[in-house]
Amino acid sequence: MAVKAQVLYDFTAEPGNNELSVQEGEMLTVMNQAVGGGWVEAQNSKGQTGLVPEDYIQQINNSEASGTQQPAQAYQGSIDYYDDDGEWDEESDDSKSPSGYSWSQSDGGGGAAQQGAAAHHPRKISLNKFPGLSKTPNPEVYLLKNYMCAENDRLPIYMGEVGPVWLYPQTQLDCVVAHPKKGTKMYGLKSYIEYQIAPNTTHKSVNHRYKHFDWLYERLLEKFGCAIPIPSLPDKQVTGRFEDEFIKMRMERLQGWMSRMCRHPVVSNSEVFQLFLTYKDEKDWKEGKRKAEKDERVGVMVFSTMDPEMRELDPTEVEKKCETFSHFSRSMDDGVKDLLAVGHLHWKRCAGPLQKEYQRIGKAFQSLSSVFNTSAYQGEATLTDALTATGKTYEEIAEIVAGQPKKDLHFLLETNNEYKGLLGCFPDLIGVHRAAIEKVKEADRLVAMNKIGPQDKQTMQKNLSTMSYALQAEMNHFHSNRIYDYNRVMQLYLQEQVQFYETIAGKLKHALSQYTTL
Amino acid sequence: MAVKAQVLYDFTAEPGNNELSVQEGEMLTVMNQAVGGGWVEAQNSKGQTGLVPEDYIQQINNSEASGTQQPAQAYQGSIDYYDDDGEWDEESDDSKSPSGYSWSQSDGGGGAAQQGAAAHHPRKISLNKFPGLSKTPNPEVYLLKNYMCAENDRLPIYMGEVGPVWLYPQTQLDCVVAHPKKGTKMYGLKSYIEYQIAPNTTHKSVNHRYKHFDWLYERLLEKFGCAIPIPSLPDKQVTGRFEDEFIKMRMERLQGWMSRMCRHPVVSNSEVFQLFLTYKDEKDWKEGKRKAEKDERVGVMVFSTMDPEMRELDPTEVEKKCETFSHFSRSMDDGVKDLLAVGHLHWKRCAGPLQKEYQRIGKAFQSLSSVFNTSAYQGEATLTDALTATGKTYEEIAEIVAGQPKKDLHFLLETNNEYKGLLGCFPDLIGVHRAAIEKVKEADRLVAMNKIGPQDKQTMQKNLSTMSYALQAEMNHFHSNRIYDYNRVMQLYLQEQVQFYETIAGKLKHALSQYTTL
Repeated sequence: MAVKAQVLYDFTAEPGNNELSVQEGEMLTVMNQAVGGGWVEAQNSKGQTGLVPEDYIQQINNSEASGTQQPAQAYQGSIDYYDDDGEWDEESDDSKSPSGYSWSQSDGGGGAAQQGAAAHHPRKISLNKFPGLSKTPNPEVYLLKNYMCAENDRLPIYMGEVGPVWLYPQTQLDCVVAHPKKGTKMYGLKSYIEYQIAPNTTHKSVNHRYKHFDWLYERLLEKFGCAIPIPSLPDKQVTGRFEDEFIKMRMERLQGWMSRMCRHPVVSNSEVFQLFLTYKDEKDWKEGKRKAEKDERVGVMVFSTMDPEMRELDPTEVEKKCETFSHFSRSMDDGVKDLLAVGHLHWKRCAGPLQKEYQRIGKAFQSLSSVFNTSAYQGEATLTDALTATGKTYEEIAEIVAGQPKKDLHFLLETNNEYKGLLGCFPDLIGVHRAAIEKVKEADRLVAMNKIGPQDKQTMQKNLSTMSYALQAEMNHFHSNRIYDYNRVMQLYLQEQVQFYETIAGKLKHALSQYTTL
Repeated sequence: MAVKAQVLYDFTAEPGNNELSVQEGEMLTVMNQAVGGGWVEAQNSKGQTGLVPEDYIQQINNSEASGTQQPAQAYQGSIDYYDDDGEWDEESDDSKSPSGYSWSQSDGGGGAAQQGAAAHHPRKISLNKFPGLSKTPNPEVYLLKNYMCAENDRLPIYMGEVGPVWLYPQTQLDCVVAHPKKGTKMYGLKSYIEYQIAPNTTHKSVNHRYKHFDWLYERLLEKFGCAIPIPSLPDKQVTGRFEDEFIKMRMERLQGWMSRMCRHPVVSNSEVFQLFLTYKDEKDWKEGKRKAEKDERVGVMVFSTMDPEMRELDPTEVEKKCETFSHFSRSMDDGVKDLLAVGHLHWKRCAGPLQKEYQRIGKAFQSLSSVFNTSAYQGEATLTDALTATGKTYEEIAEIVAGQPKKDLHFLLETNNEYKGLLGCFPDLIGVHRAAIEKVKEADRLVAMNKIGPQDKQTMQKNLSTMSYALQAEMNHFHSNRIYDYNRVMQLYLQEQVQFYETIAGKLKHALSQYTTL
């Protein structure tokens, strides 16, 4: 009956969750392998029992253990994601796909260090960003037709001060993601987190689990992915799912993702997004989901709903604009990645060697003070007290230095991570446009071959012009948000940096005041 | 005639000094080996000629070179100090000995990095601190006699508030070491530095070269080395002898050494020290030198001039006090070395990785700003200007961070280096006392063996008591100076640290002010 197992990775149990904390190398007795959902029930050497992720242990072919013996290799190398919410995929309409842009903890700046065991855990990351589309979506199906949009489906593009722009709503939609609440399944054996989302348009909040966000992401990507960058959701996370720190981090990132979607005039106004934010009841939600999944104006066909009320652009002009955006987004991608790399390094330095160094400086002053205290010389006290205080101040500075990145660098890195995600979508956007430009270039040949008529070529050019206006509107949206975001985050960063240096200066001033004035 | 030689170490010529800059690995032709003073005249491949230290080159047994061939091994391994001032030892009364406490550039904090070639230069460091004495001076010659001092030779020890103390003068002697002046020898071929020393007691300054300081050090060590820690002079230095930075550093350290000697009531009042500071002319100096070198009250005999006007101490009491001081000086030595190690590491970090990191942060902001500038989006200028300014601010911070140790850590490390030097003298001081304690312990046996009389034992105890009072007076002098020095240097350090953090905060505040207020 009892099968022995060795723990491969540290795992910290959530209190009240029937889980068992285990440490790497520890030996366990597996009590029940049929718990399901990637969990086994196990007992440690102290006799404590609880649930442990089955990927975290390796069963041992132990001749002393009676009963069924599991071959050890059956568990080796099988470490993998288990279902995100730790539950069975009982809802068959929940299609899942790994996120394309890996918004991993380490990208988020130092988070990896906080999530010890997670760092040991290998991940499967798929790079396929368009589950419903081929590598570069073929714009042909869109280009050859003439479209007349129903008014409620129509996405107008206007000429604004900065060039083509989307139609912006009078009041910008926003929402608050808050109050993460633990729900349970499996008769209380397993739990998940439900977030409350409160839009500023209604007075009613809705509840969603991560898997619902994921469903929304899939729908938005499918529908708008050719015209609008839809950044991935924050990365899935196995270990410490219920640790406060992790919940806070995921919520913060879901908030960031939702705010960005709310800020987008096209996305925020879409039926599927509105459904997510304002569904009335379970029935409403289920019906809305089914409808959204049947939407046919997805992929390149999204352009068929777009209606720029401007002169038609020449294909040469289109190509030029496309190249300008391509160049900008690649350069910004490099710049953002550089800043992220520099920032991560600085974070590591602050929380690692620099913290240790200030601690050592603090300790060196304190040990000198201790030695001085043994001098048996009178009139020693003022100096040794001041030296001790100085040492303690440097120890405090060590903690301030180590904690500072969370206060400022964190937001700078988060913002740049968001932009890395957005910029990662641009090659696909640009790719669709380039493919369309090529198609229109081929049009003359196709006309000569009688494959299409001269009218068709004009239609293609008109549609290409629409695509270009959409890209311009999107770039202008991107630029205006970028200026706002970087302005905001740089101010936040600098404000915190100023406070950081002023705090340290203040502490050192206080330490200084304790010496005898000469 | 021409002998080929390969350069072993980089050497930078002093302008106007007939020297030739050479680089490691470079081939030279030796033109004249008979220049003397450790120099050869050589020609490089460009045809430039000049003086090069002979220890920096290795002559090659080159069959192509005609004339006398020097065996290569004659120069291998012969790298050594050459005469400090680069001159012949024409003054035969100048006895030289390498300094015991290596006050090297790297101990001085970061200086090694500035003196590139010096780091390659292997050094001979002798650990013999008492050239005229055996490893532990034998106190027997002193212990067995009764002394009556001449009044002008007498070194009184009084009971002060803190215990036994030396007699302190009404006005403390001090001097200023300044105005380093280059002098030349060898018909202008070689140069040396002469320092001006101005004591606060006379209105006349005297000139001394490093070798004269070295002579003074030897005399003080010989005379007082058993009773008073005489720290070594700043380390000798080959490369860049005339570089401004080095001259400044050596002068600063000679100043520190002289000030410490001036502050010592026994040393500063001694005939040899007064001679050094106040000799009238060359004749006066030479006569004084000869007299000092003939002084017989040196080594352990210095105690014979000491006169504590206090009750005789019991040998057990002496031993206890000796152990107390021994323990304190060892602990402080550890503490000081720890602080030095931590400080050097911090210096390296500030001037190395940390500077680079702030530079990279600065560059990352600036490149992002450059990318933003290419957006062709209007209303970009305020953000890009502010971002560029922020980037430049972090580049400035990088320089401030790298330059800061010179402003604060430098003095902290210099002071600790001085104390490391002083503490390095204590084991010898303690050793003499321990040897004397052992001698007195043996006295009973010697009395029984009729080797000494009972009266002799009493004399020994009285003399041991004198030694102990001297050690106590010295420890009290050490403690009072230590409290003063550390109080001063810690305040200086913290003042500069406060200013450092405030300066950075100010710069960041200014950068922050350039963003658009949200």
